[in-house]
Amino acid sequence: MKHSQTHSFACSPIGYNVGMTNPNRIAREKTRSVKIGDLIVGGGAPVVVQSMLNTKPDDLLGAREQVEALAEAGCRIARIAVPSKIALECFALTARRSPIPIVADIHFDYKLAIAAVEAGAAAIRINPGNIGGFDKVDQVIEACRAAEVPIRIGVNAGSLDPEVAAEAGLSAAEQLAASAIQYVEYFEAHDFEQIVVSAKAHDVATTVTTYRLLAERIPEVPLHLGVTEAGGLRQGTIKSACAIGALLLDGIGDTIRVSLTADPLREVEVGYDILRACGLYRAGVEIVSCPTCGRTQVDLERIATEVERRLASIKRPLSVAVMGCVVNGPGEAAGANIGAACGRGSAQIFVDGEVRYSVPEEKIADALLAEAEQYPGVDGSPAA
Amino acid sequence: MKHSQTHSFACSPIGYNVGMTNPNRIAREKTRSVKIGDLIVGGGAPVVVQSMLNTKPDDLLGAREQVEALAEAGCRIARIAVPSKIALECFALTARRSPIPIVADIHFDYKLAIAAVEAGAAAIRINPGNIGGFDKVDQVIEACRAAEVPIRIGVNAGSLDPEVAAEAGLSAAEQLAASAIQYVEYFEAHDFEQIVVSAKAHDVATTVTTYRLLAERIPEVPLHLGVTEAGGLRQGTIKSACAIGALLLDGIGDTIRVSLTADPLREVEVGYDILRACGLYRAGVEIVSCPTCGRTQVDLERIATEVERRLASIKRPLSVAVMGCVVNGPGEAAGANIGAACGRGSAQIFVDGEVRYSVPEEKIADALLAEAEQYPGVDGSPAA
Repeated sequence: MKHSQTHSFACSPIGYNVGMTNPNRIAREKTRSVKIGDLIVGGGAPVVVQSMLNTKPDDLLGAREQVEALAEAGCRIARIAVPSKIALECFALTARRSPIPIVADIHFDYKLAIAAVEAGAAAIRINPGNIGGFDKVDQVIEACRAAEVPIRIGVNAGSLDPEVAAEAGLSAAEQLAASAIQYVEYFEAHDFEQIVVSAKAHDVATTVTTYRLLAERIPEVPLHLGVTEAGGLRQGTIKSACAIGALLLDGIGDTIRVSLTADPLREVEVGYDILRACGLYRAGVEIVSCPTCGRTQVDLERIATEVERRLASIKRPLSVAVMGCVVNGPGEAAGANIGAACGRGSAQIFVDGEVRYSVPEEKIADALLAEAEQYPGVDGSPAA
Repeated sequence: MKHSQTHSFACSPIGYNVGMTNPNRIAREKTRSVKIGDLIVGGGAPVVVQSMLNTKPDDLLGAREQVEALAEAGCRIARIAVPSKIALECFALTARRSPIPIVADIHFDYKLAIAAVEAGAAAIRINPGNIGGFDKVDQVIEACRAAEVPIRIGVNAGSLDPEVAAEAGLSAAEQLAASAIQYVEYFEAHDFEQIVVSAKAHDVATTVTTYRLLAERIPEVPLHLGVTEAGGLRQGTIKSACAIGALLLDGIGDTIRVSLTADPLREVEVGYDILRACGLYRAGVEIVSCPTCGRTQVDLERIATEVERRLASIKRPLSVAVMGCVVNGPGEAAGANIGAACGRGSAQIFVDGEVRYSVPEEKIADALLAEAEQYPGVDGSPAA
């Protein structure tokens, strides 16, 4: 089934997700809706960017500050590890004051999972394979059912159920998918359907294959995408973009987390960059600029950088082409909301596909800024 | 047909592409082999990273220096725009001394294309739609046939054949693919098969759909992947990783160019990062590190950064896990060549999947470095 939403959805201080107005909109698979706090994940809702705190479990002030900063950056769900009772107390106080839903991440101790539900978790994430047996899983399910709290079933290549892992002939992706599906079937057999599933590997190809298997075999379950242990900012960004991008472009995925050994704020930024690249989120200025070559007769990198910097405060979606020559310049400038097709020391300024006037090189950035400021559309609304 | 190579291929100063030794190897589509200088593109050969000079057309010294720097960084093909006669002279002198094959990028003027072939181009790139008509295309084909020089047919969303573009009801991707395929059929009807095709858009979803159409409809033709006018380093990297990654993960693509409004050296680095993320290239150290959370009891970001920095000089492929806690730590540390699974102020050091010993936090980086230095395998050979 295809995405049924026809409206765009105001979702965060920094923009909105794209609905039917985007001609490159990806046909998303329709999964079940799962309610996490006030937020809907799945069911055709816009893809949700989430992250995880990396503060110490007893650092209440740090946790509160990080949650606020993440929310400000557009993070819509924040997860907190709850490995101990002191962490649980801190979690409870953080969740209570948080502007966004807080998910408790629990391993090994089902009592902590139940306590986290009682402490106000908007959802909990467990790996049913390491929580102490299925009788303990049952108790967690009942606590969540009573409190109407959903569960993310999170399996991970680094902590795979040894029985599934040992099954002969299965690839890593098949093992991960089989492990996740086994848990999904268990939860559904217990009539608990408010679940989201993740099955992450650090390997991009394994991750993509795993999620494709999940989308095929449990198409109704919302999927949380991510590459686990992806590394630092540079490597982690590229691994996440390759894997999450490939899946989103196929219409797979309801929420994403970019895992980086770095400040969680970077995870949120890269998450939105990936959504934006896939045409699933628009906000602010998209610069369409050429890589320059021997044909370029203006200082294009400087102009593009200046335009990007000076238009950074614009919140509404706006595409701005800054093109270096006559080969693709007029075409791209005409295709953007606003564009400059540069020639020798000057540029034609395009608005809505038509040449309006020409300006000398030193006025190109000024002209684009002036056109951007009067371009129709207000913050938070789709581009005209 | 699947990739038939069973050997890995020494390809550049900084590493090698992965053959059958990689368990996550992607089944590549088998295209025709096209010879560009001494290099094979297509036919199951390792994916080639290329870039394009952005020096001024008359800057001979700059061009030579940039070609040398690109080759040093692992760029295997460099393209140069040839928009004029002075550019052609510069091109000839640059190509003659270049350590890597040089491709002439020609628009509008078929005489320049023919002259570039005579001047020593290893290949030429044209858009047959803007070179002055099919009679001119014929003359370019004959010049290339005589000199045994291949042609890249490069179409681009910004300069699409108006007749194809105007055809009713075609999506942007269908227009791009149809335009490229029309030219391929023309070249093949003229018995000229030494062709590589690109059909780039600045939109990621359009780019991916276009290349999927090409892979389906002209499966024998090697494909040059790229997102055009992708923007600056950050946005361009993410757009390129999403599009090129999605295609490579499907086995599509024989050569890639990351277009960035930035130094071309960055294009090469990001290109290799994308290949590495997709399991198509291995060289140097891959750090598998977790994003850290409240469970982490060591300063993992510092340790991971130090390990990455101190192992940066290692050229052979080596995976090193630096993991923060007991949830996924032992699994990932065991899965890497070398790993550290950290607990409270200490870590277990893994080699080839087994715990060898424990070290306190301040010795973790030292231990991983020592193990890396004695790990089997020499530079340029596959990891054990």
